[in-house]
Amino acid sequence: MAELFVIGERIHRISPAVREAMETMTPEPILERAREQLEAGAACLDVNIGPAERDGVELMEWAVRLLQENFDNVPLCLDTANRRAIEAGIRVYDRAKGKPIVNSADAGDRLEILDLAAANDAVCIALCSKAGVPAGNDERKRYAGEMLERGMRLGMAQEDLWFDPLFLDVRGMQDRQMEVLHFLRELSDSGLRTTGGLSNVSNSTPRRLRPVLDSAALAMAMFCGLTSCIADPCDRRLMETVRACDVIRNSVPFADALLKD
Amino acid sequence: MAELFVIGERIHRISPAVREAMETMTPEPILERAREQLEAGAACLDVNIGPAERDGVELMEWAVRLLQENFDNVPLCLDTANRRAIEAGIRVYDRAKGKPIVNSADAGDRLEILDLAAANDAVCIALCSKAGVPAGNDERKRYAGEMLERGMRLGMAQEDLWFDPLFLDVRGMQDRQMEVLHFLRELSDSGLRTTGGLSNVSNSTPRRLRPVLDSAALAMAMFCGLTSCIADPCDRRLMETVRACDVIRNSVPFADALLKD
Repeated sequence: MAELFVIGERIHRISPAVREAMETMTPEPILERAREQLEAGAACLDVNIGPAERDGVELMEWAVRLLQENFDNVPLCLDTANRRAIEAGIRVYDRAKGKPIVNSADAGDRLEILDLAAANDAVCIALCSKAGVPAGNDERKRYAGEMLERGMRLGMAQEDLWFDPLFLDVRGMQDRQMEVLHFLRELSDSGLRTTGGLSNVSNSTPRRLRPVLDSAALAMAMFCGLTSCIADPCDRRLMETVRACDVIRNSVPFADALLKD
Repeated sequence: MAELFVIGERIHRISPAVREAMETMTPEPILERAREQLEAGAACLDVNIGPAERDGVELMEWAVRLLQENFDNVPLCLDTANRRAIEAGIRVYDRAKGKPIVNSADAGDRLEILDLAAANDAVCIALCSKAGVPAGNDERKRYAGEMLERGMRLGMAQEDLWFDPLFLDVRGMQDRQMEVLHFLRELSDSGLRTTGGLSNVSNSTPRRLRPVLDSAALAMAMFCGLTSCIADPCDRRLMETVRACDVIRNSVPFADALLKD
């Protein structure tokens, strides 16, 4: 199993600094967030431009070019509900370091995003839900099956579908955390790639607890075979946990040298 | 599943301060190590008096009385290869908070420690090894089976056998970490209680990495159903991980209040 592929989540239009930079197309705040995430160990950057119904196409083109030109064709995750913006991002995407990643399809209204990824030879994150939180793992499995089948039918390679079990908030949905992890295990055991918005787990918990909860959940998820996650690489505890778990699960073989002073 | 039962490992004759206190039967250094571990969240204290061939009996009696009198009959783990010392410790043990725990039997030369625990109605830690590191999980399983059968035959309750899969050093045995965790999962799935010396994992790695590696391994082990561990409760990161994992695996139900500021 390869090292965990960490997708940095910090270029997100919900952040006031990013929003302003996007609305004025000012490079520096975006570049700074990219730089700090890559330095912290992100393998890929999520570019969330929001719904972007008005300015999505030009904004995604601008952001993709800006980031890939400045960071040696860094892999990007194109994150918006605006399908024309995704297509525009893919058009200008340099594949020197792999296919663009589309974030995300689901088994409901966003199923067409999967078709879009297939038509454009992109990786697609496939959220195992339809409308809101799935009732349980039978439902998750049905959705995963539907999306897998559709992707295959459209000629996608299996490894280009990254299934997201939908991590749930521990506050309010504490008794469903193990269910998500067991589903992740099932996906991994079927040889499927996986990802997910890990920080959902600690959503609305106190700030000091978030790295603790996210790291604990991540270690469990990595034991269950998680191959990628969408997270904050600037959370030092989390990235230390990624590295330790990659060593423990032997994703970084012969790590003795890493474990010396 | 109950909250993880943390056995504090810091009263250990290998530490110079503890050794001197034991050799001169000076209470304060022992009491201080007990206090700091209980304050940090240990549910039980391991009392390792070393092989103690000469002074084992009186030393174990002294330590058991000292700790139980000063800390409200705190549960203790009697840890020595000297069986007469274990018997002496059990004789003076106050069971107000449960049975004494004997640390440990194995499937080889120390199998008689299991007999001793059975004869004295004590909990017994059952190390799934015979002579050194088991070759793999088939071997671990055979040893666990032998010890379980013997315990049952001697009239022990199943929950009084705590199986230790033998955590291995990540340095040198990196490619066998997942094997240990999968075996732990098997033990848990069979409804058995489990424990283990978790800090084995980070043995001989740099000091700054130890809490990171131990916490990552602990989270994975707790996902696999670990019911107890022998660890350093003064490792803050580790205890934060214990609490987070207990919440995630729903061992502390309705934890919403804990997750508020």
